[in-house]
Amino acid sequence: MKREKIKLLCESSKFQNFIIGLIIFNSITIGLETSERIMMSFGNTLLLIDKIILSIFVVEILLKLYGYGFSFFRSGWNLFDFSIVAVALLPASGSLAVLRSLRIFRSLRLIKNVPKLRFIVESLFHSLPSLLWIFVLLALVFYVFAVIGTKLFSASFPHWFGTLGSSMFTLFQIMTLEGWAEISREVMIVYPLANVYFIIFILLASYTTLNIFIAIVVNTMSEVQQKTSSVSVQKIETIIQDENEELKNDIKLLKEQIIRMEKKLLRRNNQ
Amino acid sequence: MKREKIKLLCESSKFQNFIIGLIIFNSITIGLETSERIMMSFGNTLLLIDKIILSIFVVEILLKLYGYGFSFFRSGWNLFDFSIVAVALLPASGSLAVLRSLRIFRSLRLIKNVPKLRFIVESLFHSLPSLLWIFVLLALVFYVFAVIGTKLFSASFPHWFGTLGSSMFTLFQIMTLEGWAEISREVMIVYPLANVYFIIFILLASYTTLNIFIAIVVNTMSEVQQKTSSVSVQKIETIIQDENEELKNDIKLLKEQIIRMEKKLLRRNNQ
Amino acid sequence: MKREKIKLLCESSKFQNFIIGLIIFNSITIGLETSERIMMSFGNTLLLIDKIILSIFVVEILLKLYGYGFSFFRSGWNLFDFSIVAVALLPASGSLAVLRSLRIFRSLRLIKNVPKLRFIVESLFHSLPSLLWIFVLLALVFYVFAVIGTKLFSASFPHWFGTLGSSMFTLFQIMTLEGWAEISREVMIVYPLANVYFIIFILLASYTTLNIFIAIVVNTMSEVQQKTSSVSVQKIETIIQDENEELKNDIKLLKEQIIRMEKKLLRRNNQ
Amino acid sequence: MKREKIKLLCESSKFQNFIIGLIIFNSITIGLETSERIMMSFGNTLLLIDKIILSIFVVEILLKLYGYGFSFFRSGWNLFDFSIVAVALLPASGSLAVLRSLRIFRSLRLIKNVPKLRFIVESLFHSLPSLLWIFVLLALVFYVFAVIGTKLFSASFPHWFGTLGSSMFTLFQIMTLEGWAEISREVMIVYPLANVYFIIFILLASYTTLNIFIAIVVNTMSEVQQKTSSVSVQKIETIIQDENEELKNDIKLLKEQIIRMEKKLLRRNNQ
Repeated sequence: MKREKIKLLCESSKFQNFIIGLIIFNSITIGLETSERIMMSFGNTLLLIDKIILSIFVVEILLKLYGYGFSFFRSGWNLFDFSIVAVALLPASGSLAVLRSLRIFRSLRLIKNVPKLRFIVESLFHSLPSLLWIFVLLALVFYVFAVIGTKLFSASFPHWFGTLGSSMFTLFQIMTLEGWAEISREVMIVYPLANVYFIIFILLASYTTLNIFIAIVVNTMSEVQQKTSSVSVQKIETIIQDENEELKNDIKLLKEQIIRMEKKLLRRNNQ
Repeated sequence: MKREKIKLLCESSKFQNFIIGLIIFNSITIGLETSERIMMSFGNTLLLIDKIILSIFVVEILLKLYGYGFSFFRSGWNLFDFSIVAVALLPASGSLAVLRSLRIFRSLRLIKNVPKLRFIVESLFHSLPSLLWIFVLLALVFYVFAVIGTKLFSASFPHWFGTLGSSMFTLFQIMTLEGWAEISREVMIVYPLANVYFIIFILLASYTTLNIFIAIVVNTMSEVQQKTSSVSVQKIETIIQDENEELKNDIKLLKEQIIRMEKKLLRRNNQ
Repeated sequence: MKREKIKLLCESSKFQNFIIGLIIFNSITIGLETSERIMMSFGNTLLLIDKIILSIFVVEILLKLYGYGFSFFRSGWNLFDFSIVAVALLPASGSLAVLRSLRIFRSLRLIKNVPKLRFIVESLFHSLPSLLWIFVLLALVFYVFAVIGTKLFSASFPHWFGTLGSSMFTLFQIMTLEGWAEISREVMIVYPLANVYFIIFILLASYTTLNIFIAIVVNTMSEVQQKTSSVSVQKIETIIQDENEELKNDIKLLKEQIIRMEKKLLRRNNQ
Repeated sequence: MKREKIKLLCESSKFQNFIIGLIIFNSITIGLETSERIMMSFGNTLLLIDKIILSIFVVEILLKLYGYGFSFFRSGWNLFDFSIVAVALLPASGSLAVLRSLRIFRSLRLIKNVPKLRFIVESLFHSLPSLLWIFVLLALVFYVFAVIGTKLFSASFPHWFGTLGSSMFTLFQIMTLEGWAEISREVMIVYPLANVYFIIFILLASYTTLNIFIAIVVNTMSEVQQKTSSVSVQKIETIIQDENEELKNDIKLLKEQIIRMEKKLLRRNNQ
């Protein structure tokens, strides 16, 4: 009985709007904390507000946990919500700057609580699975070039190609085309043929990313197309059925005409 | 009576072409004012021309206001036109360099007065509303990363991450991929794990902008598609109707044949 | 009589392949001229070859002029061909390095003479007219921002915004996103609000170029679509006609059946 | 007999998964070799593992060669597989660092052995032939601009435009828009009109690459479109056939009705 009430409360639009309002308000207060000037004058107030809002969020999650029971964890979005609040509870115990700064992740709860945002994020993720193997291919290209780069250039350019990790980072930088020429020209002073390495990598990486992009466009477009096309087929079906209805009617009338004629003729003959 | 005449005058193509000519001429004179050499020899003439053209524009707007009455303000484009001329009147009183330089905004009146340009700008704005929530999402990503960046890096890199504003600017720069590697590498000297922050932001920001782009392409394409598809459906409808017209005619002829036969038979029988 | 013969000669594939071969060979010799080492040993030979090939080209054009008469100039591609050879004759008189280096433009004659290349270039130009007004809009945005930039920043940053021309160049650089942040950050030291100028320009310029791109995609796609769709309509038309042919046949058979019956009945009645 | 058995063995999924596992394991060991620390402690083990895996690969290829005979070389992918293993055998004889680092190319065998990856790579190559002539055009543009650049700028800027090769590299850099403004501004100090050269090249190169991209999108989309459209045509065909089946049935019933009537009338007349 009570569970049902709490469930209804959590699903009421007033409650949800209140939570959305709180998330936005909390995002602003956490944003204000970045200003030293504001922290000097209102620091304690801001931290207090933050604690109060956090406790409201904790209560909200507890209510939902009680209301929905274990089925709460079946939705990926609820898990998302839960873990953000859970993470926010951690920094209270520790004092790591990084963890404290992650409190702003609470703003991301907006994505779950505003339906339009959730829909967009869901459709952004929607096309990812079909891209899985292009990403595997890209990862393979990265790995192969990172190993070659590290083996060849690590001695002369430890800054860029010192370890497999830094080679990967440098290759990512080169893929974004940011400063690739500078790196390439400097490496070419020691290894004059290094341009082959860089140009082939750029061509491969940009062709693969281009195809990631094209895959998304084509996927989305072909879905739109199939909808449009099935709507057209339905329209044409209706037209054909309407038209043939008329034909059937004509044939039916013809039949009646024949039956009438038959009767007349039979009657005449009987006379 | 007079109002109608003025309305007709304002809508006459001669009047409109004259205004278009004036806008182009004015754009050139304002452009010439940027050259010091020209200003030394023809400065006064240019400023005089500018004043004359501005007064013509004011008269034009007054005529339109009189001609159309209050309904003038109902069109967004008229408001655009009005405010540009109104802003142009401001610098006459003040002497702020910024305001003076904004006089060139008068060139933008071309957009309203050349139908082709207006059509393009309208179609550019046409797809913006459907992108609203992707922009909200992008803003959320920016805000979250700006807060994290400011909290973590403001102490060591005040130039890039000193305040929330400068963090936003730096993130915009990173989103354009301009010089991101340089910033990232320098931050990584102090915070070795900062590359996680930069790479995740680049991936999120470019994936989201990619989806803005894809949304526009898909929107535009699906409109084109629906037009093509409805044209096809209409063509097929005509074909079906034409073909069935023939069938109906065949059936009609059959019917007449039967009626003729019936008559003949009845006549024979009556003989 | 002779004119016809020359025309046929010019259109023969042997003649055309010979010219294509000459253009490629000439491109290579001009390329070789860039190497100082090769010029030292074979310089005179290369220049001699160049003169011989040029004279063959002149003869070719003269033949065509004689063969086709004045109608030669009606084709844009012929004019293109003619002017490239004509320009190549100029440096013989002058000795300007720039003009000499333009001799390589002769390679571009390949575009006219290889049908596949000509087709691609024609289809590249095909979509340009429909983009005219987006380019006008982009030019307007450039002009307005160049005037504002020159007025505001020319005093402090003559290198980037000294004249209208250099402002345009800087804006073009910013549109390619190359080094824009560097420029913006330096201007912001003097004018803290300059970021508004740069960010708005980047957003406007990239949104407009994005739409140029989308316009090309949508134009090309909608052409493809209309072809596919008209092929579908034709296929469906054939299907409908075939199917209705059967129906007509059925009705025709029915008619014959009725006529047969009528005859039988009449005969019986006459007995 | 034995050949068939070996063929079946090579095609068994167990064998193939074993090979895939080996390739991944080998990729990891080669990756580990890049770490100096790991090499100091486990260097010999890693090199031993590498030799063992290589010999397994050699055995695998020999088995396949025996199993399939000469037809093995008919598949492009087999050739790819074969040459990678063959190249891997080379460094055993020499000691060139470059050749040793190419051992990582063995990871690329994954592409052949994982069907999903092979499919993606095949579809990536699928659209290349149709792009051949755009690439020829791009190469022509590159060549013409490289010759002009070398002739004009080689004296003052040997670093960027010293030889035809370095001009090509610089043009490739400019095409990626990386640091083009810096190069252009420096060249413009000596040749004030050099911006014409750079801007025209950027416009030509980006317009051509844009069209490469558009060609891929349009190719892929039009394939999808033709599939969707032919599916629609088939659906409509079924609808038309079903509908006309009914009509035919109606006409058939009409015919039977007439025949019945004819019989009745004839019977009557005969009475």
